Amino acid sequence: MEYQDLIDACSEEWQAYTEHDFVMQIADGSLDERCFLHYLKQDFLFLKHYARAYALAIYKADNLEDMRRALPTVQVLLETECNHHVEYCKKWGISEAEMEQEDEAFGTVAYTRFVLDSGMSGDLTSLYAALAPCSIGYAAIGKLLLQSDITKLDGNPFRSWLEMYCGEDFQSSVAKGSEHFNSLLADIELNSKKGQRLVETFRTATRMEIAFWQQGFDHVKQEG
Amino acid sequence: MEYQDLIDACSEEWQAYTEHDFVMQIADGSLDERCFLHYLKQDFLFLKHYARAYALAIYKADNLEDMRRALPTVQVLLETECNHHVEYCKKWGISEAEMEQEDEAFGTVAYTRFVLDSGMSGDLTSLYAALAPCSIGYAAIGKLLLQSDITKLDGNPFRSWLEMYCGEDFQSSVAKGSEHFNSLLADIELNSKKGQRLVETFRTATRMEIAFWQQGFDHVKQEG
Amino acid sequence: MEYQDLIDACSEEWQAYTEHDFVMQIADGSLDERCFLHYLKQDFLFLKHYARAYALAIYKADNLEDMRRALPTVQVLLETECNHHVEYCKKWGISEAEMEQEDEAFGTVAYTRFVLDSGMSGDLTSLYAALAPCSIGYAAIGKLLLQSDITKLDGNPFRSWLEMYCGEDFQSSVAKGSEHFNSLLADIELNSKKGQRLVETFRTATRMEIAFWQQGFDHVKQEG
Amino acid sequence: MEYQDLIDACSEEWQAYTEHDFVMQIADGSLDERCFLHYLKQDFLFLKHYARAYALAIYKADNLEDMRRALPTVQVLLETECNHHVEYCKKWGISEAEMEQEDEAFGTVAYTRFVLDSGMSGDLTSLYAALAPCSIGYAAIGKLLLQSDITKLDGNPFRSWLEMYCGEDFQSSVAKGSEHFNSLLADIELNSKKGQRLVETFRTATRMEIAFWQQGFDHVKQEG
Repeated sequence: MEYQDLIDACSEEWQAYTEHDFVMQIADGSLDERCFLHYLKQDFLFLKHYARAYALAIYKADNLEDMRRALPTVQVLLETECNHHVEYCKKWGISEAEMEQEDEAFGTVAYTRFVLDSGMSGDLTSLYAALAPCSIGYAAIGKLLLQSDITKLDGNPFRSWLEMYCGEDFQSSVAKGSEHFNSLLADIELNSKKGQRLVETFRTATRMEIAFWQQGFDHVKQEG
Repeated sequence: MEYQDLIDACSEEWQAYTEHDFVMQIADGSLDERCFLHYLKQDFLFLKHYARAYALAIYKADNLEDMRRALPTVQVLLETECNHHVEYCKKWGISEAEMEQEDEAFGTVAYTRFVLDSGMSGDLTSLYAALAPCSIGYAAIGKLLLQSDITKLDGNPFRSWLEMYCGEDFQSSVAKGSEHFNSLLADIELNSKKGQRLVETFRTATRMEIAFWQQGFDHVKQEG
Repeated sequence: MEYQDLIDACSEEWQAYTEHDFVMQIADGSLDERCFLHYLKQDFLFLKHYARAYALAIYKADNLEDMRRALPTVQVLLETECNHHVEYCKKWGISEAEMEQEDEAFGTVAYTRFVLDSGMSGDLTSLYAALAPCSIGYAAIGKLLLQSDITKLDGNPFRSWLEMYCGEDFQSSVAKGSEHFNSLLADIELNSKKGQRLVETFRTATRMEIAFWQQGFDHVKQEG
Repeated sequence: MEYQDLIDACSEEWQAYTEHDFVMQIADGSLDERCFLHYLKQDFLFLKHYARAYALAIYKADNLEDMRRALPTVQVLLETECNHHVEYCKKWGISEAEMEQEDEAFGTVAYTRFVLDSGMSGDLTSLYAALAPCSIGYAAIGKLLLQSDITKLDGNPFRSWLEMYCGEDFQSSVAKGSEHFNSLLADIELNSKKGQRLVETFRTATRMEIAFWQQGFDHVKQEG
């Protein structure tokens, strides 16, 4: 099987995730800034567990090649991405201290711990199946928005977010990771027990991504 | 430190959990049955991961005594409790097949995987700190409702739920577990790094319990 | 693939394990009793980690059926087997306290922690592949010795050991477990990456079994 | 408590490890080269699992600071150290392919998997307690040999090994790590349950180090 089989097996959830209103409102710049700020702060907390998951991939790998493949992602997350988020949030008036004191919202807990538990209880392929909706999904969103009529860059307060995920660096990095994921999936039949378990893992992780977008909206609704 | 220190350190969240509207509406029988059914189905899915967490406690224990202490809970969960839920849900017209096909809601994923990841990344005491809000909290709720003026048993559609958690069997079983938890906490200072981490784990697990009650309400609101 | 493929893929190691001198000298009763006592004490320490591994199988299972399948083994190990060892060792003049104070020998550490790490880093099938040489191997040894000319029961100081592993209870319990293991292997091609990793796991666990027999001999040699 | 308390609590094993004949014969250059080559090949296999253990430390850390602290070690092990071993072994006529095909010896399995299981079943401090005998021990050996009368550098075939572990880079890197380990231990009383478990973990890991030296000798004895 290939990662596209996983997407095809949950096309409804995949669409609800990659074409979520939250994303569309980032694209046309109409998103309530408070939603975006909530998302940013939660995404910072998300990153830590995302890095833990890639460290788990090193632990889970049974050869040096697979270990080395996961290492740069841990490095980028802990060194570049975290600082990037801190810089980015500063522009929006959120200090690093504020971000660290923020409670993890339910959707953040749900998604990150689901990934970690799927990875720990399954094997390396299960871990990557739980991680895939994030990387592959953001790249799909980037591609989608790049071609979409609704996307506006000029005067869009979320422009740098759009430029990052539509950008070549991010796209090519995900393409490389996806190829590796395909090599892990190559031996597995979609209709085998293992294949169906991976579908279920991928589908649930995709549902958790939807919850992650949604909580930005819900947070603001609750605040009134 | 003792488990009461954990409760005291997050008294606001503890109250929001143990005195949640969902609980109060069970007590006086006014809860929308659709909320209760959603809760029942999710609680069945919860049980599986709760049993996994107690199995993890056996893995994590470093002596036969602690291993043997966690075993009966795994047994009760996998043998008695699951069947109890199946029987219970039948009365409400939900078949076992229906329960197994149900998607895990976000709050269910959040709470169960948080417990499992806290337990895996920390030690046995961390695992029990993440599990404690469930057992100790349900026992506290049971005690509270037993004395409360609002509690009605006659004609209450949730009577058997109330009788179980107010009942002596459940209360004494939790009391025994809490005593063991206290023995694990005895050496740890509340204000040490470890103590503060346990507070944070207990507090987040308590917040996830609140989300678990809340999702019963939210589910019905979404359905309209 | 089936479990027999795993055995066939490391036939040399399998033979060295199942026909080890230690086993043969148990069969004809000629084994130095000090070797046997060392083995018994280490086997008691082994049991604890063996039970942890089956608890891990419950944690790793993704459905109630697989969870329930591993549970009786944890129960038997923690309740019956440990007591059996304590009783058995008493007959040989070793007290429970003595057994608990014994340091784990290198071979005991190697085998038990290899199983646990294989199980944790891989999936449920990997865990069972690491556990299989123990259960399937002891059953194979039992069958072998039952038919062997060298086996003597009369006056054999190790008779009860022989009767346990040659006995129907043990044989049928392993047969049942092996059938379940086959069902986990059914979807996996021997020559796939996953299949070859399972071969490697099974082969290394078998090598650790050889080390476990050997350490009984080595211990006595060192003592002089 | 401090890490020195752990050493003091198992001074006999510590001495047997840090003053092992294998070390002494490296120092005066008298070690059978076949022993050293066996050690080198096993140490290469050891490195992979050592890197997995530091990746586990990233997974286990509950704050960005602790995560970032473990990262450089994973990098150095997977990038520099592995290549260093490959280069080093080439000088001794062992190809990388040969090293990768080598079976893990019992002592290698015992030590590496003990560290990983201690880390997985305990918390971050337990993991570092299992890792400490390796880093702190090699630094202690380096210091010891630097001052020892028996150490000869001129014409010593193991000179580069000696220069690495006696060298300032290695010594200061371990000193930094030890300081961090002390900060993790600071809150824990030596005589608490947790403290005594850490002693046991450290002592067993030290015993496994002794087995690791010893297996170089044993291997050659077996070969005859």
